[in-house]
Amino acid sequence: MDIQTELEKKATMFNTYWQQYLQIQQPTILYEATQYLPLAGGKRFRPFLTMLSCESVSGDPQKALPLAAGLELIHNFTLVHDDIMDHSMLRRNLPAVHVKFGEPAAILAGDLLFAKSFEAVLAITIDFPTFRQLQKDFINCIIAICEGQQLDMEFEARKTVTEQEYLEMISKKTGVLFELSGKGGAIVGGGTPDEIVALQTYGMSLGLAFQIWDDYLDISSTKATLGKDIGNDIRNGKKTLIAVHSLTHATGTQKKQLDDTFGNRDASDDDIAMIYDIFRDLGSVDYAQHRALSFVNQAKQAISVLAQSEAKELLIQLIEYTIQREK
Amino acid sequence: MDIQTELEKKATMFNTYWQQYLQIQQPTILYEATQYLPLAGGKRFRPFLTMLSCESVSGDPQKALPLAAGLELIHNFTLVHDDIMDHSMLRRNLPAVHVKFGEPAAILAGDLLFAKSFEAVLAITIDFPTFRQLQKDFINCIIAICEGQQLDMEFEARKTVTEQEYLEMISKKTGVLFELSGKGGAIVGGGTPDEIVALQTYGMSLGLAFQIWDDYLDISSTKATLGKDIGNDIRNGKKTLIAVHSLTHATGTQKKQLDDTFGNRDASDDDIAMIYDIFRDLGSVDYAQHRALSFVNQAKQAISVLAQSEAKELLIQLIEYTIQREK
Repeated sequence: MDIQTELEKKATMFNTYWQQYLQIQQPTILYEATQYLPLAGGKRFRPFLTMLSCESVSGDPQKALPLAAGLELIHNFTLVHDDIMDHSMLRRNLPAVHVKFGEPAAILAGDLLFAKSFEAVLAITIDFPTFRQLQKDFINCIIAICEGQQLDMEFEARKTVTEQEYLEMISKKTGVLFELSGKGGAIVGGGTPDEIVALQTYGMSLGLAFQIWDDYLDISSTKATLGKDIGNDIRNGKKTLIAVHSLTHATGTQKKQLDDTFGNRDASDDDIAMIYDIFRDLGSVDYAQHRALSFVNQAKQAISVLAQSEAKELLIQLIEYTIQREK
Repeated sequence: MDIQTELEKKATMFNTYWQQYLQIQQPTILYEATQYLPLAGGKRFRPFLTMLSCESVSGDPQKALPLAAGLELIHNFTLVHDDIMDHSMLRRNLPAVHVKFGEPAAILAGDLLFAKSFEAVLAITIDFPTFRQLQKDFINCIIAICEGQQLDMEFEARKTVTEQEYLEMISKKTGVLFELSGKGGAIVGGGTPDEIVALQTYGMSLGLAFQIWDDYLDISSTKATLGKDIGNDIRNGKKTLIAVHSLTHATGTQKKQLDDTFGNRDASDDDIAMIYDIFRDLGSVDYAQHRALSFVNQAKQAISVLAQSEAKELLIQLIEYTIQREK
């Protein structure tokens, strides 16, 4: 049982399922803009987690597909809108939707993915009270993501941010979607209250580890490997955990260099390289790795209550994979 | 029984109800941006129609409030995003949300109103199969609005548009929301299939009359009366029914003047005044009035099957009011 193989197998199952929400209709350009990012790839971590959670409580993973589609559509909707707000030019090694189709079509494409996510959720087969609660969770998840994105933008304009504030922001921006993947998968799989809470906690911890690792990759990899405009985060003054750590711990010359360059839109490539060096010298990169690892352990601990199964084994592999991946 | 009094009475009832979806939370700026347009006024035509439809089939209008809130939240969400796409600076005599709070916060505010609309819908008290169908209608309504906005933008870039294309566009952009107000109000009120179809048709016809009248008001009123940037539509080449009619019927000098000025971003105020004159001289303004009236008659015809009631009487007054209002 290999995590990569399982991830790809479930991604294929998922991709076959959710394409019903990504058909081209009239007006063509709008639907092309809508399907562009969803079909541009992506590992389908959230659908994978939703299906695995369902299986780990002895549910049929097929039953988790509608919720998985809803969550992945929300994920893609937020990426499309966030890239507009963040002026990001690249996503998944391709031009961002607003770069390729223009901003108005990108706003609408995001809105359409948003609407389609509720269409997907509507196909979940559970009783009405459970459906109501799950849709409420789904809505609260979207609201939290919006709040997280707002906090992320506000933090960019601030000089410093505490680690606690940072963790609240990524809990909302990234954590809640993984949290609901775990929780919701367990609910549609018919899990017990204890199992549902375990997979909810697992999902949130995975999400936090995932986001911190993502920020770590942004710093340690090159444009070619990651498909993102990596100097961007530093020029925008983006408060990643690495940046938060350095901004808190820098003194003397390093503090001055950070003050001058971090969040400076006109920073040169040499300036960016210098900031990288400061991040490393201050131990901030190592610290982020350490924190990601602590959330990994938290996630493993959470699911210790689950009965042994192949799905549980894969959940353990998934959390380890999260901090081993290189993109 | 006076339509103005009833409209205000129901608007008050509605405003009290939906404020639960517009509370300020953290992060404050995001929620201020979110409540700004909803609390800036608005006649609440859609909630009024939803409640009246419910009453006209002997339902309790209170039961229609959750759906009314969902539809009004969708209406406000689309206004916030449309104003970004259309570069509109004013809305309800105030700066548009993106002008006041910046574009990123406005995108998020729209997204939040979108999410809240589903929260509102979730409070509807009906059985699960009916709920599923109504939420499906609600989603299709949003999808149609996105398509309508895309068509509207595509039409701006085109030289000509047929009347049929124009009607398809406004059916989607404006019609469907009124259609679902009528249909959905009747559903939650427990109407018969015939009553539901009657109020659905009434809603769509009202929506079309409403939109054509809106375009007519844009042309015939001043900035001070209407609170919108009225030269905008002509400079953007917006294909209103009046414009569609003139562009189809103009010849000679008038055709040349339209070619030069309509859709010209740099058109002066004198140019705009000249285009107004052409619209009037070609009978396009009268024609739009005539078409609005035909949809008014269609709406009246549709509800002739309803039993006599105060609500039915108000529905007839509402459709007449639609083409009498001055803003």
